[in-house]
Amino acid sequence: MKLEHIGIAVKSLETSDDLFSRLLGRENYKQESVEREGVKTSFYKVGESKIELLEATNTESAISKYLDKNREGVHHLAFSVDNILEEIERLQSAGFQFISTEPKEGADNKLVVFLHPKTTNGVLVEICQEKN
Amino acid sequence: MKLEHIGIAVKSLETSDDLFSRLLGRENYKQESVEREGVKTSFYKVGESKIELLEATNTESAISKYLDKNREGVHHLAFSVDNILEEIERLQSAGFQFISTEPKEGADNKLVVFLHPKTTNGVLVEICQEKN
Repeated sequence: MKLEHIGIAVKSLETSDDLFSRLLGRENYKQESVEREGVKTSFYKVGESKIELLEATNTESAISKYLDKNREGVHHLAFSVDNILEEIERLQSAGFQFISTEPKEGADNKLVVFLHPKTTNGVLVEICQEKN
Repeated sequence: MKLEHIGIAVKSLETSDDLFSRLLGRENYKQESVEREGVKTSFYKVGESKIELLEATNTESAISKYLDKNREGVHHLAFSVDNILEEIERLQSAGFQFISTEPKEGADNKLVVFLHPKTTNGVLVEICQEKN
């Protein structure tokens, strides 16, 4: 398991790309839209981890709903594993609940699931696996 | 620059240590108190990064004040650099403001400074350097 990325909800990718490129001293290495999730993303490499900026592209997007209730900021932490199905089983045995236990296609060539934040100290945790 | 750790504000280190050890499938590798900051911390290694749980030990602690206004969750992101003074200069030139530009002793043998979150998209960003 490693910390694959930190997802940060932002209002404007343009504004935040300017900010994070100055903060991190490097440019994003890609932008990618995930239409089904209603998000446009921008990725920065920082060592073995990534920063993923997330902008909503419609009002039904989870990021749009998040920003209705919260300020911009850290939205989720994503941990990568080699086998997402085994990890879901391990976490369920350890008492964690998932928003859905069925892996979906996320950004950056990943299969992803989210743990329910009520079981994880208010931290929205994503588990992800590189797609084969 | 790498993502050194993610600081998570928690109400009870005992409760959250139980939770995070099950979540990450490993035990914390140390607990450490920083009396001047009024915090007790617990660290987990995840790849090249760490998760730092932070519990307030008095009501004047920044963590105590944070939890008065916010739910438990991600409190700050810490990026490590080789030379904190050079990095402060670089970030000031890039337009960022600091809570204080004087490095202080933090947990885990580090010198630390914090950027003002109003200049960083609401994300509290720590810059840290290993003490020599």
